[in-house]
Amino acid sequence: MEFDPNEHQHLRYNPLRDEWVLVSPHRLKRPWSGQVDKPQEEEIPPYDPHNPLCPGNIRSNGCRNEDYKKTFVFDNDFPALQEDVCKPPESGDPLFQVAPAAGQCKVMCFHPLSNVTLPLMSHQEIVEVINKWITVMQEMMLSFKWVQIFENKGAIMGCSNPHPHCQIWASSYLPNEARLSDRNQKQYYEKFGRPMLLDYASKESKSGKRTIVENKHWIAVVPYWATWPYQVLLLPKRHVMRLTDVTEEEKDSLAKAMKLFLTKYDNLFQVSFPYSMGWHGAPTGADLETDTNHWQLHAHYYPPLLRSATVRKFMVGYEMLAQPQRDLTAEQAAEKLRNLPIEHYKTSFK
Amino acid sequence: MEFDPNEHQHLRYNPLRDEWVLVSPHRLKRPWSGQVDKPQEEEIPPYDPHNPLCPGNIRSNGCRNEDYKKTFVFDNDFPALQEDVCKPPESGDPLFQVAPAAGQCKVMCFHPLSNVTLPLMSHQEIVEVINKWITVMQEMMLSFKWVQIFENKGAIMGCSNPHPHCQIWASSYLPNEARLSDRNQKQYYEKFGRPMLLDYASKESKSGKRTIVENKHWIAVVPYWATWPYQVLLLPKRHVMRLTDVTEEEKDSLAKAMKLFLTKYDNLFQVSFPYSMGWHGAPTGADLETDTNHWQLHAHYYPPLLRSATVRKFMVGYEMLAQPQRDLTAEQAAEKLRNLPIEHYKTSFK
Ligand SMILES: O=P(O)(O)O[C@H]1O[C@H](CO)[C@@H](O)[C@H](O)[C@H]1O
Ligand SMILES: O=P(O)(O)O[C@H]1O[C@H](CO)[C@@H](O)[C@H](O)[C@H]1O
Repeated sequence: MEFDPNEHQHLRYNPLRDEWVLVSPHRLKRPWSGQVDKPQEEEIPPYDPHNPLCPGNIRSNGCRNEDYKKTFVFDNDFPALQEDVCKPPESGDPLFQVAPAAGQCKVMCFHPLSNVTLPLMSHQEIVEVINKWITVMQEMMLSFKWVQIFENKGAIMGCSNPHPHCQIWASSYLPNEARLSDRNQKQYYEKFGRPMLLDYASKESKSGKRTIVENKHWIAVVPYWATWPYQVLLLPKRHVMRLTDVTEEEKDSLAKAMKLFLTKYDNLFQVSFPYSMGWHGAPTGADLETDTNHWQLHAHYYPPLLRSATVRKFMVGYEMLAQPQRDLTAEQAAEKLRNLPIEHYKTSFK
Repeated sequence: MEFDPNEHQHLRYNPLRDEWVLVSPHRLKRPWSGQVDKPQEEEIPPYDPHNPLCPGNIRSNGCRNEDYKKTFVFDNDFPALQEDVCKPPESGDPLFQVAPAAGQCKVMCFHPLSNVTLPLMSHQEIVEVINKWITVMQEMMLSFKWVQIFENKGAIMGCSNPHPHCQIWASSYLPNEARLSDRNQKQYYEKFGRPMLLDYASKESKSGKRTIVENKHWIAVVPYWATWPYQVLLLPKRHVMRLTDVTEEEKDSLAKAMKLFLTKYDNLFQVSFPYSMGWHGAPTGADLETDTNHWQLHAHYYPPLLRSATVRKFMVGYEMLAQPQRDLTAEQAAEKLRNLPIEHYKTSFK
């Protein structure tokens, strides 16, 4: 019998994290009798006088939001990272190591209305979001080693507010995931002389097997090593180290790529597709002066849904204690997404 | 101002995973307006004729379960790991690496009744579970490099069946988490000449600050580097490499320690406390013949709840993209658990 990746279990290597994922496609046949999540709330009012993210409303710290028309950025009222805090003394014990952490947490609203999401926004509105990401980055990257832009979308992803928004947590330290990515991209660069993810983008572009959306400047794929069922890696096709290096033309086509593949996400289960996403680019702060050519800008999208709008993939026992496991292959997931309509299910009958 | 770990944010180092966790205790003050989980179903019938895990019932593959009185082990009907599968050919490309995976998946019922859990079982019944873990290990460890015993408890942890049970997935490869633990324990051993977690157990025993339960042979602590709010590390106080090396006396006191701290878990929010847990010991298979003295047997418990029976910690955006973040400190969590009654809330008024 010949090996068929869509039939036979195997391991795939994630070169960004230096780890493996177990792919068990035969397991798709398993019936599901476990927890079914609540469907996403679909009836969100465009404006809610009690929502601290809406324009003109008063937040819990007593501040009033601007009556914003596009995007709006403010300091998180309950920041996990504060700027001026007492520093811990060194413990001197390898088993009880402590280190200082300083940072800043911001919240960024994508739009004045609560009942829209990125794929439902206009091209120009998405460009505004990208521009704002870049402005915030430009400012925060001067003081911080790492600026993490991330979006938790959907209650199932711990998002406590339905208003379209993301967060930006900047830190004095390089977080674990950044450290791993940095190390692995560097090793590849030292060995092959080219940025790892630039090679990857060009190989995926040639193959097409895992591509969901591609245009002149960007490609969105279900990466070969995806752990989440419909995980996406979005990256530029030329060597770009940071979001702040993106040209006007590239912003424009990034907005187009985002709108397209996020529409496909929503169309998959006809639901506002939940995920956590975030941008990874070369470290900043003092590292703005160092050689970070091994870095290629990219965004990760980690969506939890597996079978339907209410049945998710649980990353639990085996995944937490041993190794991530997935059922459908990256190629199967990409094919499904690729073949979905490019018109959003909510607007396609209007 | 002086540094106070219960007030001031800081990073703590996890020497088993070589990574850091961000501790932001000031963030406990944040109100929660996000997703509230369904409370655990409390009315589980002792026997359900349609439950494939109950004694004497027929499973989806047509096999009938033994009419078991204690524990019961059978092959998973939808195994993520199969024993005889086609092997993938090597890809030769560092960005598309594939490797063969072979394995076996078993399910183990803890008890004939569906409406009991480990803390509600008698001492002797828990000893039976430990004995069965060991028997299964003894058998599977001869053929496999890694035998992962794990329990997903509660629907919120993806457990699709309320009957008390765990799973055992054995593999031809060393999974990521095992590889990380192995590497980090080895480095410590080479540097200090003692098993890392043996040193850790003795330091925790001396300090007591993070201890929940301790007896002659075992200690259960909220580890210094805990990421989940009420995470527990359970380990023997003498050097033990594998579950199969535990003596009769140690089994007896392990059963006692488990009953005690799992009762405290349930008492915390007066709910059958959900978690994923698993045992980690020295690698097996061919590694039974190699030097694995750097290994110390231990069990990890990862429970998701944070504030109540229905409000969990979400490990999402920042955690997935950057670094785990926790609110209350390990010491605060340990103190809460330690001070809870040792009688289970369900039986204490009978
Ligand atoms: O085998 P079960 O209990 O049906 O499945 C559960 O545990 C497995 C091992 O952690 C996971 O891969 C599944 O996502 C989860 O739902
Ligand atoms: O800040 P939020 O959106 O209230 O909180 C959410 O995202 C944070 C960053 O990933 C997590 O630490 C929280 O557990 C989650 O609920």
